[in-house]
Amino acid sequence: MRPMASPVPRLAERVLSGDPRAIARLISRVERGDAGVVEDIAQLFEAGGGAHIIGVTGAPGTGKSTLVAGIASDFLRRGRTVGVVAVDPSSPYTGGAILGDRVRMSAVAAEPRMFMRSMAARGALGGLARATADAVTVLDAAGKDVVLVETVGVGQDEVDIASAAHTTLLVSVPGLGDDIQLLKAGVVEIADVHVVNKADRDGADLLVGQIKTMLNHGPSEGLRDAWQIPVVTTVASREQGIGGLVDTIEGHHRWLRRGGELARRERHMAAARISAICTGILRDRLQDPGVGAEFEAAVEGVYRRRVDPWTAAQRLVEGLSWRAPQGEH
Amino acid sequence: MRPMASPVPRLAERVLSGDPRAIARLISRVERGDAGVVEDIAQLFEAGGGAHIIGVTGAPGTGKSTLVAGIASDFLRRGRTVGVVAVDPSSPYTGGAILGDRVRMSAVAAEPRMFMRSMAARGALGGLARATADAVTVLDAAGKDVVLVETVGVGQDEVDIASAAHTTLLVSVPGLGDDIQLLKAGVVEIADVHVVNKADRDGADLLVGQIKTMLNHGPSEGLRDAWQIPVVTTVASREQGIGGLVDTIEGHHRWLRRGGELARRERHMAAARISAICTGILRDRLQDPGVGAEFEAAVEGVYRRRVDPWTAAQRLVEGLSWRAPQGEH
Repeated sequence: MRPMASPVPRLAERVLSGDPRAIARLISRVERGDAGVVEDIAQLFEAGGGAHIIGVTGAPGTGKSTLVAGIASDFLRRGRTVGVVAVDPSSPYTGGAILGDRVRMSAVAAEPRMFMRSMAARGALGGLARATADAVTVLDAAGKDVVLVETVGVGQDEVDIASAAHTTLLVSVPGLGDDIQLLKAGVVEIADVHVVNKADRDGADLLVGQIKTMLNHGPSEGLRDAWQIPVVTTVASREQGIGGLVDTIEGHHRWLRRGGELARRERHMAAARISAICTGILRDRLQDPGVGAEFEAAVEGVYRRRVDPWTAAQRLVEGLSWRAPQGEH
Repeated sequence: MRPMASPVPRLAERVLSGDPRAIARLISRVERGDAGVVEDIAQLFEAGGGAHIIGVTGAPGTGKSTLVAGIASDFLRRGRTVGVVAVDPSSPYTGGAILGDRVRMSAVAAEPRMFMRSMAARGALGGLARATADAVTVLDAAGKDVVLVETVGVGQDEVDIASAAHTTLLVSVPGLGDDIQLLKAGVVEIADVHVVNKADRDGADLLVGQIKTMLNHGPSEGLRDAWQIPVVTTVASREQGIGGLVDTIEGHHRWLRRGGELARRERHMAAARISAICTGILRDRLQDPGVGAEFEAAVEGVYRRRVDPWTAAQRLVEGLSWRAPQGEH
């Protein structure tokens, strides 16, 4: 037991001891953007760094959730503790991710070494990416060996989330059509491992061949020379191919640790996160009551077409004060 | 003919005269983020404001492109000039949106009153939203009566793009499954008109009923009291229901102009655009060589876990200078 600084232990302290209810509460606070949550995250951040963070992205309909559940179970069988953050924009009509959370909560109850959580998109642009990164920090600090981050991967925000990982999986399925697969350059380039799921369907061999052709003809960045990006086939609904996929994921982690790549990647993750937080600070500052009048004047000028939006924005940022208001981090 | 300030007319001047090749060139410059393009956009912005901007969003597979082509053709038949910006993240393997552009270019050649253009996602987060807004400014200034902006609507960036419109259409289709429809709160809330496309499929009546139920039970914002959000059915591939849909779109535009709603919405569009540009300026500043060393130090500190990313980001923005470097806007 760690010594407590106060009679009622802080939420962050309870997270450090791995308490699942504390994890759930802190992630809820992160989602809502509660006051003071930054202090908790800052404290937890310095205690973290041990988890292998795995991004899993793919279009809707590729069976990502089933695949993630399979990967998580396989890691558990290998004696690892696992955290899962699912970033799911297709929340039900009622808003939030309530149903998903209830389903997942039963899994938590059944398996104390695993913690699964759906994040709901709330607030402004980038809010989801920030909240997801914070949730990963919570699970990392709580001592999870592996943290899986599942995203739909359509949209820059989702790509940013997926790329904030040590190992990124890109999932596709046969017969879904090129147009709804994630074949845009930005997503393909972040894949460390390609997964063709539902590989018992017609067209699986064709899709594997297309991906391999693409990998051979794609732009050579020279950054991953030593890592041959594999194409793994799975049928997640029947638990086929999961063990091989997890072997591949572990192989990638070993490869990262062997050379300088792990440090390069973690610096990239740090840079992306700092940028995202800076953007968030800017957005908060623009919504600050003290800035409100200037912002409204800029809006009015642009609305009346007395000034163009580029000039208005430049004047606005030049006049901003960046001191954090009292009480804020 | 307008008098020219120099022997070679500026690109912006040629855009103002409606020259399609000038429009295409300037939008390409916007996509690439060429130096000096901001001056052109600023000049064009003050000449614009006449177009009815219509956002069309929906999941992949809902037939948005066919629907947009149908809407555009119908507006042409009504004697309007039309611009189309398609924001398409599913670009082909070769990168960019080259194939799409070629196909669409033949339509431009055939119909001089119409200009269609695919935007490719390039650069950083928010870059696409900024480039799309600038492309709309170009088409608006070029005198298009109607500008249609087509987006996939998954991801915050796409939602932001779609909401930067006078009239926003949300397209869904029967049988695609809730999970890949755009039922997340943020997207549903921006719809002024719901379109159920492929309405000859089984389940169309059910989907229309579900949407109507949702509209009746959704959170009442009190902002659109006077506008009853309609649910319109179409079969875009057979050009069924398009005329009625365009009547509905025009009805929404008349409703906007009747009350104070048009001003409210255009102020919202101006605010969103200024915010996006401020974010872009911040991102550029963080990448500025002068800031580079401080940014790298912050990254190193976070990577080594000597400082948490929130504290590092706050220190970084406090130290930034917001003066635009010489030669920049």
